[in-house]
Amino acid sequence: MDEFAKKKGFFWQGSEIYGGLAGFYDYGFNGTMLKRKFEGAWRRYFLGLSENFFEIEPSDIMHEKVFKASGHVDGFVDPVAKCSKCGTQHRADHILEDFLHESFEGMTPEQLKKVIDEKGIKCPSCKGALKEVYVLNMMFPVDVGSGKKGYLRPETAQGPYVNFLRHFNLLRNRLPIGLSVVGKAFRNEISPRNLTTRMREFTQAELQIFFDPSKVEEHPRWGEVEGCKLRLLFAGEKEAKDVGVEAALKAGMPKFYLWHMAKVQQFYLEVMKVPRGSFRFRELSAEERAFYNKLHWDVEVDLPSLGGFREVGGVHYRTDHDLTGHQKLANQKQEVFLDGRRFMPHVLELSFGVDRNVYALMELNHEEDGDRAVLHLPAAVAPFQVAVFPLVNKDGIDGKAREVFEGLRKDFDAVFDQSGSIGKMYYREDERGTLYCVTVDYDTEKSKSVTLRDRDSKRQVRVKLRDLPGALRGLMAGEIGFEDAGDAIKPSEPKKKE
Amino acid sequence: MDEFAKKKGFFWQGSEIYGGLAGFYDYGFNGTMLKRKFEGAWRRYFLGLSENFFEIEPSDIMHEKVFKASGHVDGFVDPVAKCSKCGTQHRADHILEDFLHESFEGMTPEQLKKVIDEKGIKCPSCKGALKEVYVLNMMFPVDVGSGKKGYLRPETAQGPYVNFLRHFNLLRNRLPIGLSVVGKAFRNEISPRNLTTRMREFTQAELQIFFDPSKVEEHPRWGEVEGCKLRLLFAGEKEAKDVGVEAALKAGMPKFYLWHMAKVQQFYLEVMKVPRGSFRFRELSAEERAFYNKLHWDVEVDLPSLGGFREVGGVHYRTDHDLTGHQKLANQKQEVFLDGRRFMPHVLELSFGVDRNVYALMELNHEEDGDRAVLHLPAAVAPFQVAVFPLVNKDGIDGKAREVFEGLRKDFDAVFDQSGSIGKMYYREDERGTLYCVTVDYDTEKSKSVTLRDRDSKRQVRVKLRDLPGALRGLMAGEIGFEDAGDAIKPSEPKKKE
Repeated sequence: MDEFAKKKGFFWQGSEIYGGLAGFYDYGFNGTMLKRKFEGAWRRYFLGLSENFFEIEPSDIMHEKVFKASGHVDGFVDPVAKCSKCGTQHRADHILEDFLHESFEGMTPEQLKKVIDEKGIKCPSCKGALKEVYVLNMMFPVDVGSGKKGYLRPETAQGPYVNFLRHFNLLRNRLPIGLSVVGKAFRNEISPRNLTTRMREFTQAELQIFFDPSKVEEHPRWGEVEGCKLRLLFAGEKEAKDVGVEAALKAGMPKFYLWHMAKVQQFYLEVMKVPRGSFRFRELSAEERAFYNKLHWDVEVDLPSLGGFREVGGVHYRTDHDLTGHQKLANQKQEVFLDGRRFMPHVLELSFGVDRNVYALMELNHEEDGDRAVLHLPAAVAPFQVAVFPLVNKDGIDGKAREVFEGLRKDFDAVFDQSGSIGKMYYREDERGTLYCVTVDYDTEKSKSVTLRDRDSKRQVRVKLRDLPGALRGLMAGEIGFEDAGDAIKPSEPKKKE
Repeated sequence: MDEFAKKKGFFWQGSEIYGGLAGFYDYGFNGTMLKRKFEGAWRRYFLGLSENFFEIEPSDIMHEKVFKASGHVDGFVDPVAKCSKCGTQHRADHILEDFLHESFEGMTPEQLKKVIDEKGIKCPSCKGALKEVYVLNMMFPVDVGSGKKGYLRPETAQGPYVNFLRHFNLLRNRLPIGLSVVGKAFRNEISPRNLTTRMREFTQAELQIFFDPSKVEEHPRWGEVEGCKLRLLFAGEKEAKDVGVEAALKAGMPKFYLWHMAKVQQFYLEVMKVPRGSFRFRELSAEERAFYNKLHWDVEVDLPSLGGFREVGGVHYRTDHDLTGHQKLANQKQEVFLDGRRFMPHVLELSFGVDRNVYALMELNHEEDGDRAVLHLPAAVAPFQVAVFPLVNKDGIDGKAREVFEGLRKDFDAVFDQSGSIGKMYYREDERGTLYCVTVDYDTEKSKSVTLRDRDSKRQVRVKLRDLPGALRGLMAGEIGFEDAGDAIKPSEPKKKE
């Protein structure tokens, strides 16, 4: 994936010409389009879940007190094992994971040290002894102005929390309200790894839903998810199973939480087209999850290149932990008065790693076909929807093609290419997942039509220029099949000059 | 503007509940929508200028060598005057500007010290003596991992430079190519001020255009800008004047540069609808501009709240300064081989402050009308295009209104409101610049029509539900006038139940 991503303009190590900076990646032009498209699809879907869900943009650097209140200054630490010979600091649970193929998340330094001693684990770099295990804070501190301390946020979530009350008033005192942030977060990981899935600077798309805790057993639109079968891996179990939302309800999971889980699953299966077998929710045990999370299910996608199911998001019932923390430290009431009661809202957090999802989409949709690659990305996220080529770069064909391109780019994510043979240009578009290719040829002027080619079936049809935008729209919406797009169903070779 | 922005959900001081962090602002839900819309309009326009312009996303934190090569480690400094009594550090040129109402940009600490002494300027905080004037580096350093040094980028531009060669190859060795970044930049300003127009964390939208310097006197699409009159304030002059591109060409400005200036002006006058008298390019003198900029014109907009014309962007001919710096320090050739020659591309940079433009759009379009405010934002950036209300919250009217809203939100930036009288809801939408309001009333069910209201004229027409999307699209594109939108031209009061 590393090589493919680099060669095809998706992503590569940041500051590459200076030997790179570990944990930072730069997205190239194809990767950036894919990322923007994912963010757009995410916004449309999740902000579309309610008319009371909105995006906000708090700053990346925040006052240190924000993270004192949230617990990050004291508790956002990773366990580190230091080599007494070469001095390298390793993430203690990760080296155990690598050696023993089990999860050691959530263990204390003392527990980890015990396992290291028992199993005789040595420094992976130099085989030296790992004598010390301690914790390091993962936030990046920043000196602001002359002497004030701030931090680059380690999660986008605190922005919505400290801005909650202002929005509650602006939105005229109603609940639930949702405040979303799509933006950067920064964590000084001890050992960043697995390409863009564990970075020191990464993009989150998070939605914080503030609600009345006395209504956690209700959802006014429950009917929309009735009959939905969730893919659930319960803590302590080995296999995910299908569990109907009604059964989950009976087993004690709250309705408000379940409704959102069902919507998250729908996003993955129906919008991102993730195969059902490659998707699951994994329940975190009490040891694994943050102490303030009453319920915590990770969203996981099966990524063989990383060794199996990996976290790409999470559904967290954070209760009133954060608002209560800010109320205390800022000494400002964060409670609301609603329906005749004064209370602290609870928070349900839907959290997604944008880079991880982009990576997952690339891996899930990547197909090797001999020496060719095709990225079968769903229509919602394909970097480019349509590419336009001239059959040849002469006889006015290239000018006509450019004209078709200029017409299409107003309404579509379109790209123009004129370098190389049609076959080569098709392959290049397949590699970055472009949905359709349009070729302008010698017939175009007379017949007012072009050849339209489908990425997945590789079939071609002839389409009238005036029908082209409608055909593309219908195809992407899944309203018409590829055969219906043209006047001719038979695959047609681009014609040579008569 | 401060109060308005805060009360109406646009922006306010970051980390506000902890007393704020100077130089950081949080955008509320209306401000975020406006900012996203500006970014979208910017991308559509500037990336639409050429099929070879693309967006990339390099990381915010980069290797320290990136900024050694660019000159930022040594030269990205601001002059500071320190009070010998209270110890406060002030931006030396800014305090002079405040006292003497002239620009002191680009002066050395020695020159500034001389003016301070001559004019007897004291500390603005405590009237103490300003004995020391020196420079401070404005970058935020970051410790990465165990011991590596990075910086939060002070401009987005270096990302495209260090990624240029990879993209030149990916895009199959052609020039010009443009690499754009829309993202955060960070500067530890001594004295951040003027709300969101001089912050420590801000968003830039920049386009770096790499071209063959031997072709600086050419542009293949020169015809598109022929006859264009630029608003230019030459260095040393007091008043901007209209200068035709042909005359500017004769005066020695290069064609490639002028073409892009004309396109920048078109963006402001035609897309952002900035009045011609409120727009100008200002030429920076040799002392004011960075030494590597061969040509440097700021884009300025007249903002009375900030004292007059203020910089919102710039057109910079950066030559080969950055690529040469990276070639040297990274010891990696950055030259290209094209048209039989080996050479170092030159860079034309189009640079914009997103927050400054958002601020400018708010101020330029803000109208006070008694105790009401209207934000006459152009269609391209209005946070919401259409708001939907029920006339009353009963008799199924609210359900029908929600249905109309759900139908519209698929294709438009739509918002739903049902709190308060129709008049109050209209005012609220006017304040955030919503273009059109749709009211569903008792007639809607029978006549299949709604009342459509125009923000700027406050006129109302009746529109058939099936015509509504088309009418909105036509209105926003400026293809139809408001009278053409409905079946009735006369302003109609929402009807009461019969």
